Parts: sequence; C-alpha cells; structure tokens
Amino acid sequence: MEDRYLKNIKQPSDLGYLSDAELEALAGEIRGVLIDTVPHTGGHLASNLGVVELTIALHRVFKSPRDKIIWDVGHQIYVHKLLTGRYKDFRTLRSQGGLSGFARPTESEHDIFFSGHSSTSISSAFGIAAANAINDDRSYTVAVIGDGAMTGGLAYEALNNVGHADKSRLIIVLNDNAMSISENVGSVARYLAVMRSKPGYFKMKALTERIINKIPIVGKSISSTLFKSKTRLKNLIYRSNFFEDMGLRYMGPIDGHNIRQVCEALEGAKLVGKPVLLHINTVKGKGYNPAEKSPSRYHGLSRQDNSPNEPCANGSCYSEEFGTFLCQQASKDKRICAITAAMSLGTGLKRFSQDYPDRFFDVGIAEEHAIPFALGLSAGSMLPVFVVYSTFLQRCYDQIFHDAALQGRKIVIAIDRAGFVGEDGETHQGLYDVALLNGIPDISVYSPATYGELRNCFVRAFYHVGGVVAVRYARGAEFRIPEDFTPSYGDFDVYGDPDADTAIVTYGRIFSFAAQARNALLQEGKSIKVIKLNAVKPMPSGAVEAALGCKRVFFFEEGIRSGGMGEHFALLLSERAYEGEYILKAVPDCFVAQGSVSEQLARYGLDTDGMIKTLKGENPGNE
Amino acid sequence: MEDRYLKNIKQPSDLGYLSDAELEALAGEIRGVLIDTVPHTGGHLASNLGVVELTIALHRVFKSPRDKIIWDVGHQIYVHKLLTGRYKDFRTLRSQGGLSGFARPTESEHDIFFSGHSSTSISSAFGIAAANAINDDRSYTVAVIGDGAMTGGLAYEALNNVGHADKSRLIIVLNDNAMSISENVGSVARYLAVMRSKPGYFKMKALTERIINKIPIVGKSISSTLFKSKTRLKNLIYRSNFFEDMGLRYMGPIDGHNIRQVCEALEGAKLVGKPVLLHINTVKGKGYNPAEKSPSRYHGLSRQDNSPNEPCANGSCYSEEFGTFLCQQASKDKRICAITAAMSLGTGLKRFSQDYPDRFFDVGIAEEHAIPFALGLSAGSMLPVFVVYSTFLQRCYDQIFHDAALQGRKIVIAIDRAGFVGEDGETHQGLYDVALLNGIPDISVYSPATYGELRNCFVRAFYHVGGVVAVRYARGAEFRIPEDFTPSYGDFDVYGDPDADTAIVTYGRIFSFAAQARNALLQEGKSIKVIKLNAVKPMPSGAVEAALGCKRVFFFEEGIRSGGMGEHFALLLSERAYEGEYILKAVPDCFVAQGSVSEQLARYGLDTDGMIKTLKGENPGNE
Repeated sequence: MEDRYLKNIKQPSDLGYLSDAELEALAGEIRGVLIDTVPHTGGHLASNLGVVELTIALHRVFKSPRDKIIWDVGHQIYVHKLLTGRYKDFRTLRSQGGLSGFARPTESEHDIFFSGHSSTSISSAFGIAAANAINDDRSYTVAVIGDGAMTGGLAYEALNNVGHADKSRLIIVLNDNAMSISENVGSVARYLAVMRSKPGYFKMKALTERIINKIPIVGKSISSTLFKSKTRLKNLIYRSNFFEDMGLRYMGPIDGHNIRQVCEALEGAKLVGKPVLLHINTVKGKGYNPAEKSPSRYHGLSRQDNSPNEPCANGSCYSEEFGTFLCQQASKDKRICAITAAMSLGTGLKRFSQDYPDRFFDVGIAEEHAIPFALGLSAGSMLPVFVVYSTFLQRCYDQIFHDAALQGRKIVIAIDRAGFVGEDGETHQGLYDVALLNGIPDISVYSPATYGELRNCFVRAFYHVGGVVAVRYARGAEFRIPEDFTPSYGDFDVYGDPDADTAIVTYGRIFSFAAQARNALLQEGKSIKVIKLNAVKPMPSGAVEAALGCKRVFFFEEGIRSGGMGEHFALLLSERAYEGEYILKAVPDCFVAQGSVSEQLARYGLDTDGMIKTLKGENPGNE
Repeated sequence: MEDRYLKNIKQPSDLGYLSDAELEALAGEIRGVLIDTVPHTGGHLASNLGVVELTIALHRVFKSPRDKIIWDVGHQIYVHKLLTGRYKDFRTLRSQGGLSGFARPTESEHDIFFSGHSSTSISSAFGIAAANAINDDRSYTVAVIGDGAMTGGLAYEALNNVGHADKSRLIIVLNDNAMSISENVGSVARYLAVMRSKPGYFKMKALTERIINKIPIVGKSISSTLFKSKTRLKNLIYRSNFFEDMGLRYMGPIDGHNIRQVCEALEGAKLVGKPVLLHINTVKGKGYNPAEKSPSRYHGLSRQDNSPNEPCANGSCYSEEFGTFLCQQASKDKRICAITAAMSLGTGLKRFSQDYPDRFFDVGIAEEHAIPFALGLSAGSMLPVFVVYSTFLQRCYDQIFHDAALQGRKIVIAIDRAGFVGEDGETHQGLYDVALLNGIPDISVYSPATYGELRNCFVRAFYHVGGVVAVRYARGAEFRIPEDFTPSYGDFDVYGDPDADTAIVTYGRIFSFAAQARNALLQEGKSIKVIKLNAVKPMPSGAVEAALGCKRVFFFEEGIRSGGMGEHFALLLSERAYEGEYILKAVPDCFVAQGSVSEQLARYGLDTDGMIKTLKGENPGNE
C-alpha cells in the first residue's frame, strides 16, 4: 500500500492543501493502515474506523495544538496520531517503548492530556475554555466524546457546569455510534436513538431557507445571527431537547462519514459564540465488514503473537472461569445477580447475561451507580456481585466506602484485571486496588492464584464471610503451580519447609514465580518457605506468625508499595517484635507504562528471575 | 409546648387517624420541636423545616417500613425520625450515644441505609425496586432527593438506568427548594427554575378535565389510564422535559407545603405503573423567619455550648484562615482560581467568591468533575485550588489518580475537615484521606498543625513543589502549641532533645497533644522528642533517620491505621534495620460514630491523656 497522501501529512496543517476528493482518498488510506496494523499490534479497531472522517474534519477546521482537541477515553485516537506526525511510528503501537494506544502528552503536543478512563473530556476541555475566557485567548477547545461515555455521571456534571458558562469557546462533539464497548444501555441511549433518527441539521436546511432565506446556511458563511435569533425560530430548527435543557446549543445530527458536512458543521459551531454540542452519527467499524458486523468483538483486539499472558490465548482465563462459575452458581441460587458497568464481554458475563437476563444488569459506564444499586438489590434479599476491572474500581471509592462497607450488607465485588495489564499502560494498570481497599474499614479481600482457588474464594464470599467481600484476579490465564503444592483453600498456605529461616510472602498469580524461585534455590541448598496469602484483608494472623521466627522475610507484591499489604505486613511484624530482616519488593510509587505483562513483571523484579535475584541479594536494578 | 398530636405518633400508621386539620396542627407542632431543639443540638434546621408537610404526606400515603423511603444525604430526616418513634429521644440528636443526624438502620427499621453523602438515593432505591420486581413484591420504594443532590453525576447515572426499567415500583420525589447547601448552581438549577414556574400538575387540572372530562383527577381516584393515554394527550398535560427524555414519567410541580396536594400526588404516582419523578416545591426554612431569609446560614448549625473544637467558636478556624490567605494570594497572583463543590461557605471561600468572581467556580455537588476541570484550568495557565472536605474527597479518587496525579500538572487540593469531625459521625469523618492518597503515585501531601504552617504549606504547594499537592487541615481551630516550639517550616520538625531515646512521630493538629504529653513526661524525668511531620507524602527521609537511633518509637495518627502513614513509617524503619520497639496508635479499621471532637480523640487515645498512657505502657483500653 502506498499511502500517497498520508505519508505527506507531517502535521495537521498539511491537510489544508488537499481537495475534498483528496481528503476522501486520504480517509481510504487511513482505513487501510488501521486494518493492516491493529490486528498485529492489538488495540481498538472498530472505534478508530468509525472516526476517520471526523478526525480529518477536526484537523481541517481547527488549528491544533493552538486549538485543543481532547479525545474522551482516547482509544479512538489512532487517526489523530496518524495525522499529527506519528504515521511512521504507528507500527510500534502498544509495544514497550512504542506509541501508546491512548493520548500521551509525552508523545506529541497534539495530545493534551493522558487519558484512558471515560467521561472526563468535557470537564477538562471546559477547564481550558474557562481559562481561555479569563485570559482573552480566542482559541477553541473541542471535546470528542462517545455516546457510551455520555452515560457516565461525570459527563453530566460537566454539562451542568458548561451550560452555565456562556463565554467559553467550547465545542462538544458527540460521536454517536450507538455503542459504548458493548451495546449501549439506558435512557440516554434510547433518547439518542430517537434523536439520531430525526431530520438532521443539514436535512433541515431547505426548511430553514424557506423561513429565513436571506441568511446563508452552509459552510463558513453561516451567520451567528441565525443562532441568536428569536426562540420561536430557533425551536423550528432545533427541537428543544435534553442538551438544550442543559443550556447548550444543540446542532445535529450530522453524517459523520461525510467530511464536507462535518467540516461545515464544525465551522458553524465556531460561530455560535457559546458552548455547542454537535451530534455526529458514525458507524463503529465503518469500512471493514467484519468490524461493522461485530463492533463489540472488534472493540479491543489482543496482539496476534498470543503470548501466554494474553487473556484466554491458551484455553481459559480468569474472566472466563469466573463467568462459568457464576452461571453454575446462579442456577442453584436464584438470588445471585450480576452487575457490570458496560463490560459484559471483558468480564466473562456474556453467558450469564443470556442465561439470566432478569438478574443481569448492565448499568452503563456508571461504576458509581453500580455500588448503591447493588446495595439496594442486597436490601431486597438478592445476592449481588459487581464485576469490574481493577482500574475502574477506582471510580467508585466513595460508594465502596459509604454505600457498601458502612452498610454491613452482603455485596460481592469481583475485581478483574488486577495486577499488570500489559499493553494498555499507565491508565489501566490493576496495581492500586489493594491499597485502595486497605484504607476502607470492614471489607474482606481475597486474592486467589488459581482457577480452583478463584471458585473457592467466591463460594466463601457469597456464603461464608459477612459484609462486603472483594475477590481480585488477573487478566489472562493462571500461571503454572508446582505439582507438589496442595491448596488448603484457607486464608493462607505455607509451601515448603515450615521451619525454613527464610520466608517469601506473596499473594495472587505471582505465587507461581515465588514457588519456582523457592524451588530453584532449593536446588542450591537454600531452604525457603512461601507463605501464600489467599485472604489479604483482614491479614490472617497465622500468616504473620508463620513469618515471625524467620531471619529474613521477603514480601513480593504485584501492586503499589505505598499503602499496600507489604507495608501492612511490616507493621504487624514489628508490632510482634520481629527482629529479622524485612525486604518488600513491590511496584514503586509510579505509573507503569505499556509493555507485555511479562515485560512489566520483569521490569519490577516480580518474575521468577527477579525474585531469585532479590532473594540472593542481587538487586535487579529497579525497585 | 404540649405537642398534643406528635406525642401520640408512636409509629407512622398512627397518622391514619388524623384529619386534614389535625395533620396541619401536627405540622405546626413538628416545626415547634425543630425550632426549639436544633439550635441546642446543632444540625440541619432549614432543610428539615422545608420537608415537614412532605414527610407527613409520605408517611400518610406509604406503609413504612414495608414501603421503603430513602432520604438522600439524610440531613433532612429529622421529621421522619419524629414520626417513626424517636420523638422522645429527639433531644439526644447528634450527641455521643444519641440519635444520629442522618439515617441509621441501627436506630430504626424505618431508616433503610446509613447515609450522609449526596446523590445516592435513586441508585439504592432502584436496587430495592428491581429486587422487588424480581421477587414479585408489590411494595413501593421512594427516593427523596433535593435539587442540589440532583447536580451529582451519580443521580444521573441512576436516572439513566431507571428510565430503562418499566416494571419497577419506584417513585422519585424531587424536593426542589432551589438550594443545595449554598445557592444552587448550573444548568440543572436553571432548568428547574423554569420548571418550577410552570403551571403545575394541579393548576393544569382544569385544562386536563376539559380534555378528558371522564377521568377523575384528584386523590386515589386518578386513573392510570390517564398516564397510559396517547402521547399527544400526554404532551398536552406533561410538557416533554428532561426527566421525560430520561424515560421517567414526570409529575409536577406540586406545592410541597400543602399536605392534601402532596398526598394526592403521591397516590397518583402509585398508580402510574412505571418509575415516576414527582417534582415538589418547598421552601427551605419554611415557617421560621430567620431561616427562610438566610437558608444557607441555617443549613447546618453548631451546638450552642461552643466547645473549643467547634469551627470558629473562639475567633478563627482553619477554614477561615485558609480563605483569608487565598484572597491575599489571589490579589498578588492573577492565576489563582478556587473551585468548590457546593461548599463555598463551609470551606471559607465566601470572600473569595465575592472578590474574585471570575476566578471562583462552584461546580455543584460534583467532586468528580471538579478535578478534570481543575486540570483544564491548569493546562490553560491558571493555578487552580480545589477546596473540599476530606470525606468528599473520596468521591473523586479516580479523578485524583487519572486526571491529576498522572498528568503531572500543577493542581492544589485543599482538604478541609481532615481528622475527627465530631457530631456528623460515621459518614463525615476525615480519617481516610491520608490512606487514600498514600496509594496514589506522584502526589505530595502536607499536614500543617498551625495557621502559620497552613499558610506556609500553601505557598509551597503553589510555588515550590511540582505536580499535585494536597494540604490537609482540621475542622475548627488550631490547638495550643508550646511556646518553646519554633517551627522550621520544613518537611518536619524535631521538638525536644534530639538525642532522646524515645520518639513520638505525629502530624497535623494533634502535635499539640504530643508536645503536651512530652512536656508532662519531662516533668517526670523522661526524655522524649517529638518528630512532627509537616510533609507526610513523600515521607521525609530525615524524619525516619531522626527516629532510627531510638529504642522506642510511638506513631500517633489521627487517621485510619490500615494504609496510613504509621504503616508506611514502620516499613521505612524496618528497611533501615531499626531494632527498637514500634507502637502505632491510630484509628482502628472502623467507622467512627458521633460525639464531640474531644470525645472522639479521647476514645482512640489520641488526646494528651491517651498519649501519656500509651507512652507509659498503660494502654487506654481501645486501639
């Protein structure tokens, strides 16, 4: 493929030299690059195919980086990367040291903020626009947000604030593809479906022209007078709606695959003189048949090299095991309900949603709502489990505190993608949930290593432990466990000689590496026991006792050091007058960049080699 | 005052025996009790005066606790308490061991959930309603939510979910008094102001009757047919609006001080057969002139006994000192902006809002939005400070992580009400923010003890430290500091003999007690130094070194033990081969019930007496 036009786009302003026909050709080239590249690098194919024309139009109309374009979540930013000088590096996408799959200011001045979590773009764009208003800076700020992200309460909080601020040069582009990650849910989705089907801005042109035939209506010549005219006229053109009720000027819907139309609408939006919401219809997966037909499946792709850490690459994975278990359990216990925040596929809940539709709740990208909703289900005698990625659990801290832990009712939280997550990088790591939960009273936290323990922990969570119980497990497949290890299914296990004077303490999937490190050193004549925590909160006192008599205790933690269990264990040991050496090897206080899971484990000395080096006192360089 | 009717209401069903006129008399008695009691107990006067008739009507129409009434936030629950068997205990409100000022299931079966934080009621009520739908339970669930709470994104996430669920017997009562805590802000407020002024449900009666004169319209006889009739007819009666767009049936506005009208509307809502939003207009402070005139001032009252721990009881307080400092700074630095989430009064920002209106942003009850909005301001070359109570900081954990710390831009967070907060109890304690921030990378946290240090920490936060900086300070006034203590304004101070073999480590206002305990024991010939942390994250390494040579180190922390700085310090000591004794005295992993701040400090051994006992090895009983 030659990429005749794309290869000459060194910066967005180069788009200015292309004719409409050439822009169309460019769009075709970009589609080709995406379809060629993303199946190899992994990443988000369908959402990027959907915004090819929109991105071209945005960079044609606005002057980035003076005008600032904020992409909500950022997984639809590939086209933007291709148009802002990153075409030649595009094949490094999502690999260690390569281009990020999300927005990264460290990569380009055209990426304004790090992003990866949903529904924040209107807030941060409005902040810039408000600052510009104070400083008499007349540049524009554009937030591009999907209809899925629009179900997050944060977006609504921002709209509530924006509609109030008439002076801001803020344009909100609602990229409406009728999908979040799974099919979109809720009233907003239903509402948008109605809006989508309405005669749009440009279809209304004829009518408008009949009414006010002296005001030109297309392109840059749209007069701001049109938008300032009397309410009655405005209502003829723009039906009063949700967004108008929120104080924004509404324009749309626009065909998001017609570059010319989108450009004209964006030029029109610039003239309005107050915050505008521009409603753009796009098709997720546009131009690539398999993705158009199954946009959920093509939302996120894994790398084709299929390293063993990839989810379900070799047979099963934690998510799938969980999903299967939950279906079995739900067939026996009619109280079990499952809640997801727009993540039914990734969390293994697809079968549950089909088999038990009455007890399955996809609440939209609304982690905050999910917890008090679960509380209500629990008060109504159901047994709810909220299934959520570790990184998105952060979005409901206060609800876990106030609407779960404080209440003392039974709520189960299944924390998927706990630990290193690989290629998604800084914004998606599952390294912080243990520290987060550590500082909240009255919660129990389990961290199984194997599928068998996973099932057992959930049985305990549902039936044997009171209050709020979280069970956390990693992305991908379980790691290999030595055959001579027999799980107790208790709060902790000791693997190896109980009288060894060196102990490793750890939890979760990296028990595999701890056991292998222990066995490797046994070959060298060193006796080590591994204290494997299954319950991490409250910390089993027996596990502390098992470490007390040792001369050296090594705590390996696939999670942040500050506030985590390694610190907690240090305190418990020192309070019991432990006199030996204590070495904590955890993820330091930093944000962890992309790479494969194996690379990330190695980077922080949490694989078998790293552990052996630490046990031998050869520090693996980083800490 | 005799309370002729009120004293006979032992349970809500007793309301059934009263005539309309007697209900009116009861309302008068309840107002009398509120006006007599609340100025003595402290608490929320204006909001409770506003819901007297609404609460009577709710308990007249619904059968609590079979039907469940969920009060959002819960500070407007006093009337509900008076009507559900707690009249005789009402004078114990907010005192240690007495009635809570919020909903507490441990107090009464009529209080469904612990509450205290805003915007959660629709979610939890919908959970109950959804469970009831599954279980064929035909009871009703009612969420009572204020217009202020409606600005929180959580409420919107819930609406998005509710509008989707036609089978639920859920009634949302929007208690619209045009106020949250301060005057309400944003588009929703403006929108509701328009709705409020519309001809209401009952004013529309005449028109409706003309259109469909065969359907009776008042009281229990409202036919559900009315609500199921054709869209065209529906639109004549109920203007298509925000809530209808969200999929709910809208009824209103209703005069919330007319018991008869509210009862009729609630009966009507029961017949609709799908989730209903009932819009009730009330007047905050109704029936008490001073409160009607200044509802913000009468929103929350402190106890009249004016204990020295009360905010600004004797002269100044941290909040006021902060507000004054910020105004001074803003006059010199035009980049400084202040953001509050509906808390301009409590956080000392009133003068700032008046002097610098262009740089003051009240975003509504929208802590999530506040952080990415601050990020945008920062990117736009401003210097934003988000001022928030410790307990509400919990509501934006993910934004602090993703939209602040990860970005590396300058954002200042002023954390007010850090530490014990006194009478508000479990739901409002400021004991968890340090543990919360401990587990997030790349944040600096300061915890000054005195007003002087507070100012100094903010200067450092604004100008001398990079990235995100939090400064935390307590409710109320600074405590007494020994005259021989000279602050260094560095990361930590050592008070007392640097060579003492016993060290106290602490931070924040309780340094006062640590210093007094040290001085008391000095009289007994014991030499102790106090290591006073000003920076708690990152932990100053000099402070760890200052403790290393000691035989005994006591860490006193006015915050949760798990995940806090005492644990962190234990690790740092043990990693440097500290061989002495380490005793951490912090708040155990629990939720801390109401009482005065002095009582709470004593309860956990964190006052001077408690510290002396711990230092002497006489454990003060709890831990």
